[in-house]
Amino acid sequence: MRKILVIGVGAGDPEHITMQAVGALRRVDVFFVLDKGEVKQDLVDLRQEILRRYAPDGGYRVVHGRDPERDRTTDAYVEAVDDWRRRRADVCQELIAAELADGQTGAFLVWGDPTLYDSTLAILDDIAARGFELDIEVIPGVSSVSALVARHRVPLNQVGRPVQITTGRRLAGAWPSDVDDVVVMLDARTAFTAHTGQDATIYWGAYLGTPDEILISGPLSEVADRIVAARAEARERKGWIMDTYLLRRGAPPASDGAP
Amino acid sequence: MRKILVIGVGAGDPEHITMQAVGALRRVDVFFVLDKGEVKQDLVDLRQEILRRYAPDGGYRVVHGRDPERDRTTDAYVEAVDDWRRRRADVCQELIAAELADGQTGAFLVWGDPTLYDSTLAILDDIAARGFELDIEVIPGVSSVSALVARHRVPLNQVGRPVQITTGRRLAGAWPSDVDDVVVMLDARTAFTAHTGQDATIYWGAYLGTPDEILISGPLSEVADRIVAARAEARERKGWIMDTYLLRRGAPPASDGAP
Repeated sequence: MRKILVIGVGAGDPEHITMQAVGALRRVDVFFVLDKGEVKQDLVDLRQEILRRYAPDGGYRVVHGRDPERDRTTDAYVEAVDDWRRRRADVCQELIAAELADGQTGAFLVWGDPTLYDSTLAILDDIAARGFELDIEVIPGVSSVSALVARHRVPLNQVGRPVQITTGRRLAGAWPSDVDDVVVMLDARTAFTAHTGQDATIYWGAYLGTPDEILISGPLSEVADRIVAARAEARERKGWIMDTYLLRRGAPPASDGAP
Repeated sequence: MRKILVIGVGAGDPEHITMQAVGALRRVDVFFVLDKGEVKQDLVDLRQEILRRYAPDGGYRVVHGRDPERDRTTDAYVEAVDDWRRRRADVCQELIAAELADGQTGAFLVWGDPTLYDSTLAILDDIAARGFELDIEVIPGVSSVSALVARHRVPLNQVGRPVQITTGRRLAGAWPSDVDDVVVMLDARTAFTAHTGQDATIYWGAYLGTPDEILISGPLSEVADRIVAARAEARERKGWIMDTYLLRRGAPPASDGAP
């Protein structure tokens, strides 16, 4: 039986890592990494920094696979993602079979928390469903959602009220029903701009926890343009962006000293 | 100016603490603790264990205040909570003024993540809004939501789909609109039992990350009674319970080897 650890390493700041994750890193024989065509060198460096700091004794190998391309030309989003996941499962299964001996421990490092908008768990479930036996353990991490609102020093939810976590694709369609607080992940097209007519506050952050972190908050109608510009400029300069935001119906509280 | 750190210490397992939180603990002059009338000795012990492990050099004081009672007789939930928060702000402001000198650093330790269904931030905002100057810093933590789904080894969201975090009070009224995945916090009355007619899967956990952890999952209609019984038994035996759960529309996946 092969053991696979899915380790949440937090949302960008190496110090977001938990003691549990540090303990897990030190049990690992092989780290599996799927490289994207587009090189996000900062993320590669950050991962190396985490291993250098917290698993300084080495004793592990890092094995790279080539992440297959997702079909971004189709409108069938879920099908495209499902197909992509299957092809990633093929790559991962091959890597694990070739590189991890029975009784050894492999690991995937995941930004943020491995259960939130990350496909590693689904890929491993796909592999397990094919009859390739894996003993999977998940190490939770600080999510980018928690990191975002911590930096803005605002609660995620209002008293007794719900909060919804959703995607830019869905928010572009409509503000979700029956919730005043919405967190948006995976928004490649600034879906918040569809709602600037709303009386709402936005708490936006990019490259959270890293030296490049950008935070902007304020009434949505007033700061939306500034966020769009900051986002475009940063993306151009760095070649990639990871950002997330909380939309809260209503004006910011008077006491709000957030950035 | 007084500095106040709001430190997320994770969801029960002392090893959920982050390196950032460990660094923060070591900067603290005074830890503030609001004691409840009902003594949850396990939580007191766990907090002491965290300080013993991660701030072993001492150099801090722990100051206790008496947490005022919340009016649980009224139906006006939000008003009762607001009133309670104001009285807690009175207690906290008095403690901070009396025990923390200008230039010193105080801290509140918060279970899970301080931004999710916790009132510490709102209390400190209340105090700041009264003109009592505080420099507040929030250290994110592993939330009980992340800990729950990590232990069940399931993703929190489905591909491209939203997830809503809500309260037992609200779920008892209705399943939230337009979402298939619902996480419930603060459910004192097993609101999931109102939905056993649904085709849904429940992933339930209590005392997450502690030696008393209980995990139950399965088709809601089949395991609801078992959860109700386990919850009542544990609460009776320990005198308190903290639990949370994910409800997911549909049957469990075939590959689901969760507990």
